[in-house]
Amino acid sequence: MTITITAFERSPDGGKGLARDTRVRWALEEAGQPYEVRLVSFAAMKEPAHRALHPFGQIPTYEEGDLVLFETGSIVFHIAERHAGLLPADANARARAITWLFAALNTVEPPILDLSTARIQEHDQPWYAARLPLVQDRVRARLSPLASRLGDADWLDGTFSAGDLMMVSVLLRLRSSGILNDYPNLADYVARGEARPAYQRAFDAQLAVNTGQPPTG
Amino acid sequence: MTITITAFERSPDGGKGLARDTRVRWALEEAGQPYEVRLVSFAAMKEPAHRALHPFGQIPTYEEGDLVLFETGSIVFHIAERHAGLLPADANARARAITWLFAALNTVEPPILDLSTARIQEHDQPWYAARLPLVQDRVRARLSPLASRLGDADWLDGTFSAGDLMMVSVLLRLRSSGILNDYPNLADYVARGEARPAYQRAFDAQLAVNTGQPPTG
Repeated sequence: MTITITAFERSPDGGKGLARDTRVRWALEEAGQPYEVRLVSFAAMKEPAHRALHPFGQIPTYEEGDLVLFETGSIVFHIAERHAGLLPADANARARAITWLFAALNTVEPPILDLSTARIQEHDQPWYAARLPLVQDRVRARLSPLASRLGDADWLDGTFSAGDLMMVSVLLRLRSSGILNDYPNLADYVARGEARPAYQRAFDAQLAVNTGQPPTG
Repeated sequence: MTITITAFERSPDGGKGLARDTRVRWALEEAGQPYEVRLVSFAAMKEPAHRALHPFGQIPTYEEGDLVLFETGSIVFHIAERHAGLLPADANARARAITWLFAALNTVEPPILDLSTARIQEHDQPWYAARLPLVQDRVRARLSPLASRLGDADWLDGTFSAGDLMMVSVLLRLRSSGILNDYPNLADYVARGEARPAYQRAFDAQLAVNTGQPPTG
């Protein structure tokens, strides 16, 4: 059955790979699964036809036969569960990899998203400069223990997993802030993720959309 | 094998059931699994012994034989995967229930947590009152489409699932704000969750800890 995902017709980041379809593309590339992409405009995303697929009016969605999924974490997990390459076979190692997937989304990403939201939506507010250090401290409060746990390992728990895919994707959002430079092992970890051929293919495919060139994938 | 979870020695909410161990207790009660609880003080939570279980120095954790998990979503999913009662048997329905689990944690909870964080950590800041409506609007931007999708159904997708367990748990955090009153079907949905015998047992067990009485469970 054909897998079809949705992505921004034009990503707000202009192709930096931070839109969430990149995470799903990366998972599909790691799993060696071909996929099609339906591009959606900001206006169409809020229309009933798209909300029938994604109640919150966002991208990405995932369609495969009768199955319709939304929510990036769920889609990546679905791909990881059905194809080799993203979850270890050992039951305990698998449960721990899933733990990192949730930790990336529910513990590490929220303060990082707050930082983006402050920058984008509150930049002109009178409190912006005074409040920014608070938000940055909340990000650091997650990065410090994450850096301690990672130590000098390549990945968070043994071999590369869906948990690493999501953690690297979440940390990538920090690059423009410069905060990642204070955690060299996390910066290296992100670079290791980006160096994976599957990531490169995913990145190039979303870039092709955003530069108006046909995807090469 | 004995299941052992960790919980606050004294919950910051004084036993309102909003600490995340309640979510895990609820899942274990739905699954009919007995469990033991190890209480952890705020100081001990940040010590290396606890951080070996939970890198971010929080509760709950989950131990079962050699397996150690942290991150509430992951623990609830682990319980749901291994025992009946929290995920449908049909593959597509199961994937959709998992989608709601992720949606609760990554799409609905973050703005709700921002609202709590603003109230707790920024209440004395000069910008608090001016910024509050922005944060409330971000919560409403999630609740409106969620209410539309739920409609007059009992649960988000057919029968009660781990997705509902997590969504109800996330929405419960809003009760004191009064915002939930503007979405009567969501308020009813939360009440339906709270009325489940498994939730009641979980709530009572955490309350017993926080009122200094021995758990009755």
